[in-house]
Amino acid sequence: MGNVSIAHIKVKRVSVGKLVDDDDELAVEEPLEIQLSYGNSVEPRQKSISVTMRTPGFDRELAVGFLFTEGIIENRSQVMDVQPVPFTENKIVVTLVANESPRLQKSERNFYTTSSCGVCGKASIEAIRTVSVYENGPDEMQVKAGLFYGLQAALLGQQDVFESTGGLHASALFDLDGNFVMLREDVGRHNALDKVIGAAFLDDRLPLDKEILLLSGRASFELVQKAAMAGVKIVVSVGAPSSLAMQLAQESGITLIGFLRNERFNIYSGDQRVVL
Amino acid sequence: MGNVSIAHIKVKRVSVGKLVDDDDELAVEEPLEIQLSYGNSVEPRQKSISVTMRTPGFDRELAVGFLFTEGIIENRSQVMDVQPVPFTENKIVVTLVANESPRLQKSERNFYTTSSCGVCGKASIEAIRTVSVYENGPDEMQVKAGLFYGLQAALLGQQDVFESTGGLHASALFDLDGNFVMLREDVGRHNALDKVIGAAFLDDRLPLDKEILLLSGRASFELVQKAAMAGVKIVVSVGAPSSLAMQLAQESGITLIGFLRNERFNIYSGDQRVVL
Repeated sequence: MGNVSIAHIKVKRVSVGKLVDDDDELAVEEPLEIQLSYGNSVEPRQKSISVTMRTPGFDRELAVGFLFTEGIIENRSQVMDVQPVPFTENKIVVTLVANESPRLQKSERNFYTTSSCGVCGKASIEAIRTVSVYENGPDEMQVKAGLFYGLQAALLGQQDVFESTGGLHASALFDLDGNFVMLREDVGRHNALDKVIGAAFLDDRLPLDKEILLLSGRASFELVQKAAMAGVKIVVSVGAPSSLAMQLAQESGITLIGFLRNERFNIYSGDQRVVL
Repeated sequence: MGNVSIAHIKVKRVSVGKLVDDDDELAVEEPLEIQLSYGNSVEPRQKSISVTMRTPGFDRELAVGFLFTEGIIENRSQVMDVQPVPFTENKIVVTLVANESPRLQKSERNFYTTSSCGVCGKASIEAIRTVSVYENGPDEMQVKAGLFYGLQAALLGQQDVFESTGGLHASALFDLDGNFVMLREDVGRHNALDKVIGAAFLDDRLPLDKEILLLSGRASFELVQKAAMAGVKIVVSVGAPSSLAMQLAQESGITLIGFLRNERFNIYSGDQRVVL
């Protein structure tokens, strides 16, 4: 059976001055156009929201995850249907329940501009905090440090497409006992996370405030922002966070862990949830 | 002296059950709004083109590199000035010579849609080939395999911000003898490449058809597309290419090398330029 996420190609391998022809596998990258259908039978509306370069597979999750993390849709009950556009490739349409209004102006939130600072990280963070649907109340959540040590190995064990192609980012969820919950892979790290959040959205399992989000690479502002939108409280990245990712985690009450390596990691925000 | 690309922060390091407070450095991430000013004194026009999350530094190069690789501007002589917008943060304006017209509709090219295939990689590639300003004629360029072996070490030796933060992607140029030419780093890999191409654009050194482009990470469609726009003939990525990156390289006559590791690499396209 074919895997839509993997392309089988011919490669020439050079090793210490010798060249051999060989078969290889690459991660598939194709554009996906996400459309939104809303309004009602009297006044139907259809709008193309975004085109993203993604790895095929879990397109429904990606579409709703993207619309949710952009603040355009807010809950499962708004969505009637998610389907590929008939007779085309790489287009998917999310259809809302009649008379549900998407919050389209919200998709500008990342780059909210204020007269005081032009367009800066502070304004971006401010803007995000006003649109997240989940409250940031205090919690008693605590996780033992030792639990984080095993997450990277667990992630690699689950990353089957990465294993054969070396070309994919991953986002994964673990429960607070460290048990693996789910994983999605994609050439775009933001897509991998949108697929995870979209899957939870479709199952009506949001907010993800009882799970640990593990990112295979670095933690950018955009990834922490998506995590904040989904109500995630603990974000662990294998790589480094950026300055703005750390700042957003601090202001959103998110525990941000980075540089996870065997029995070592750094805590950039929310260390009260980590017990030694 | 401060480096605008590095943020000094406090971190809690956990190692085998012990926690210590420490100082750390993170790669800075901040939004940059790229504006375009054009028209003439009678009818001046100003337009916000894009906001990108970037690492501060080389903003002028980033702005023109982005406009060039998006096909909005085509050559150095069109650009009168590139300056930060006064009294704001993180905004930069590229001012064109009077009566020069930016090709704004071209920025849709990535996601050109055809009725035959919806929105697919084939249409994307087709659309790009129609806008690249450089001809893809045959050439006699040849590079010895051994030259590639040393590139990764040379890259790491130059990546000073990466060394302290672990948080940056890099794009670098080498000449055909393997000598280091230039490097730019950024939290966004597309920005790192736009900065390299923008620097060459401002120096009127395009096309980059006598240099080797080295990417610190994976080769996505978007990166190969930017390379194609700049006339690059040899792209080397430390990580894996995607399926569409390989396809675009093949159709653009670009030599694409991936998985560069000491004395090994894979050739995905254009192996006639590599001699053993």
